[in-house]
Amino acid sequence: MLAPNNPALKSWLEIPASSDFSIQNIPFGVFQTGAHGPRGCTAMGAYVVNLGMLHDLGYFNGIVMPPDVFKQPYLNTFIAMGKERTRAVRQRISDIFKANSPYPLKDNSEHQQHVLTPMYEAEMLMPVFVRDYTDFYSSEYHAFNVGTMFRGPENALMPNWKHLPVGYHGRASTIYVSGTDVHRPFGQLKADDSDPVYGQSKLLDFELEMGFIIGKGNEMGQQISTAEAEDYIFGMVLFNDWSARDIQKWEYVPLGPFLGKSFASTASPWIVTLDALAPFRVAGPPQNPPVLDYLKYSGKKGFDIHLEVMLETEQGHEKVICQSNHKYLYWNIAQQLAHHTVNGCKVEVGDMMASGTISGPEEGSYGSMLEITWRGSKPVEMPDGTSRKFIQDGDTVYMRGWAEKEGVRVGFGEVKNKVVNRS
Amino acid sequence: MLAPNNPALKSWLEIPASSDFSIQNIPFGVFQTGAHGPRGCTAMGAYVVNLGMLHDLGYFNGIVMPPDVFKQPYLNTFIAMGKERTRAVRQRISDIFKANSPYPLKDNSEHQQHVLTPMYEAEMLMPVFVRDYTDFYSSEYHAFNVGTMFRGPENALMPNWKHLPVGYHGRASTIYVSGTDVHRPFGQLKADDSDPVYGQSKLLDFELEMGFIIGKGNEMGQQISTAEAEDYIFGMVLFNDWSARDIQKWEYVPLGPFLGKSFASTASPWIVTLDALAPFRVAGPPQNPPVLDYLKYSGKKGFDIHLEVMLETEQGHEKVICQSNHKYLYWNIAQQLAHHTVNGCKVEVGDMMASGTISGPEEGSYGSMLEITWRGSKPVEMPDGTSRKFIQDGDTVYMRGWAEKEGVRVGFGEVKNKVVNRS
Repeated sequence: MLAPNNPALKSWLEIPASSDFSIQNIPFGVFQTGAHGPRGCTAMGAYVVNLGMLHDLGYFNGIVMPPDVFKQPYLNTFIAMGKERTRAVRQRISDIFKANSPYPLKDNSEHQQHVLTPMYEAEMLMPVFVRDYTDFYSSEYHAFNVGTMFRGPENALMPNWKHLPVGYHGRASTIYVSGTDVHRPFGQLKADDSDPVYGQSKLLDFELEMGFIIGKGNEMGQQISTAEAEDYIFGMVLFNDWSARDIQKWEYVPLGPFLGKSFASTASPWIVTLDALAPFRVAGPPQNPPVLDYLKYSGKKGFDIHLEVMLETEQGHEKVICQSNHKYLYWNIAQQLAHHTVNGCKVEVGDMMASGTISGPEEGSYGSMLEITWRGSKPVEMPDGTSRKFIQDGDTVYMRGWAEKEGVRVGFGEVKNKVVNRS
Repeated sequence: MLAPNNPALKSWLEIPASSDFSIQNIPFGVFQTGAHGPRGCTAMGAYVVNLGMLHDLGYFNGIVMPPDVFKQPYLNTFIAMGKERTRAVRQRISDIFKANSPYPLKDNSEHQQHVLTPMYEAEMLMPVFVRDYTDFYSSEYHAFNVGTMFRGPENALMPNWKHLPVGYHGRASTIYVSGTDVHRPFGQLKADDSDPVYGQSKLLDFELEMGFIIGKGNEMGQQISTAEAEDYIFGMVLFNDWSARDIQKWEYVPLGPFLGKSFASTASPWIVTLDALAPFRVAGPPQNPPVLDYLKYSGKKGFDIHLEVMLETEQGHEKVICQSNHKYLYWNIAQQLAHHTVNGCKVEVGDMMASGTISGPEEGSYGSMLEITWRGSKPVEMPDGTSRKFIQDGDTVYMRGWAEKEGVRVGFGEVKNKVVNRS
């Protein structure tokens, strides 16, 4: 029995080499079709695999699970079973789909018809009920860029920035899945020399982020160390922290972002497990000044995940406007969770914790329009001759991410959302 | 049939005049005992009234409700039935308990034994599953006091403060019910001239607030006007927004409060409906400069609710250290909700929106230790000769609130929590 990450694994199902959903990936999601309601699923090549049906057909015999664990609107119950059992499920899926599988699916076309749905026929749903949502601010390049614009390069980073992973609470119930149209928000806008006015945001932006999902809760008052942290993390998604810069600028002092964010955040539908990402671990950046003991860590806590943002006009003209990487984060996910719980804060299965905008060191790797166009001073030229300082009505923002090594690709699919205007 | 608020209503059950839970109140909560799990309930004088049992016994016949609506861990399903039906339930409860009630409870001692639990035998639970939590900052006196301490009286209020109800996202899953011990949090603390250190908060504080609970959701992109807002609000609770001032001070720039708040917030277990509070409406303060159109409102949107904070030492020495009032809020709850949704933000049944610290205009009415002791410069003298700059281990903070008029008292009970130290 080969472990699911083994690069030697091949599937009897045809999977293109360019697919995000190799047999080494086995992410988890929730989908529905016209024929049935929400079902837990995984992705294999160009197919959504109905785990509820696999469970009904007995393919998970020997793994103790509630009969309806994959027939719920969210994966929270599945994730809450704990890593021992969710790993057993991932291993079983690997064994079902591998070449020379001992399981009957590969030769049973009736089972295949029940279990496999072409991706284009599946409606992907939010994979988890997000209990609480925290957004960090963990890319030094992003914090430096934004700080430079507003305070100059000498004062770009706030004094606390290198001592702790700055974060804030976001709104959990307005995180939507990829595909949801985003309404251009209204709000208070204020030019420097005039009174605030009511109007629509003119400076609508995306933020390229990744989010991790809590897979195990702690007790009130219990800290989670950096060494334990990854046991509490189930996996990751792509995350677009939509931001109305003009609303945010006027409202955020002194208590932080509010309506400039809460109209919508969006997430990709597939949760890629930390297990699937293990081969792509890399060392994090050196941290100087040294961090306090509770933030010290050992091992490779960074992830080499290529990230990119593509902008598409309403007429279908596309341009990749950012190529970045998860490894650029200064603060890793173990440090984020250790910091989050240092005060005894309780976390719960389904909590989402996002990275903050992941910008890289140079132009071309910046993760927001604010940085890409440097506050609008360097507009993006689109293939149809139009230009963008921020996001226009009708534009669609695609974020994609994947890791690749030794011929194995483990990807996240995409989070893609169109901006609409209801005014 | 007299409406539930009618001051002429008396109950066949003996209710002391000093009780928060007059027959005119009829708040909603969730309790359990050793004999049964969570049950929706109301309070009548010194008794918890088991609504699940009343429902089983047929007392709600004629009101369409799921049979298990009061046998769930939270009231969300009940609240989501809508005001027409929850009002019918409140009217029915009033009719069951009024003098000369046509319902059999008043003469049926077996039914009474099933339905009535003395309050001291009931364990009160969180009344709602808080889907998302927002904290506003709506008391001018509080914002002015805090601003004065940090920036002087000329710059006390930020430029946006009188143009919009400043608010921020808080952590919903760490809101605990009254009675829960609060752990003194650890975190990063930084004195002005030295590097940050890891340690326990020394400046632990309460914030006297009230929270309102959303009773009806909107759609993504749909604004709620000030005129409609109260249709979306089910009722209110007392709320203690515990704050670690030292942790907060170092972490909060530029994205707002995080770990200085997320270790715990606490709420009173009884939700008093807006209907029960209707007789206590008062005009709000004049707002100058004039607000934008979407924040304009008509009618009396303030509430004359007396609020107080009592501090009790571990040895049982008590002192009332604050007497304030909900009417001191500059921004009312209709404006808060209209602002919250002006950007199209979706709200959901069970969302909690707290007021921010409710300080009054003079000393004695300040709603936090930070203000009461003016950053520790005027310690509170306790009856046992000890003094307090902030909250000490073993101290219990009680917050109470009630409205009173024409001999009718409608109260919230209390939110009471002891500070413990696990180090």
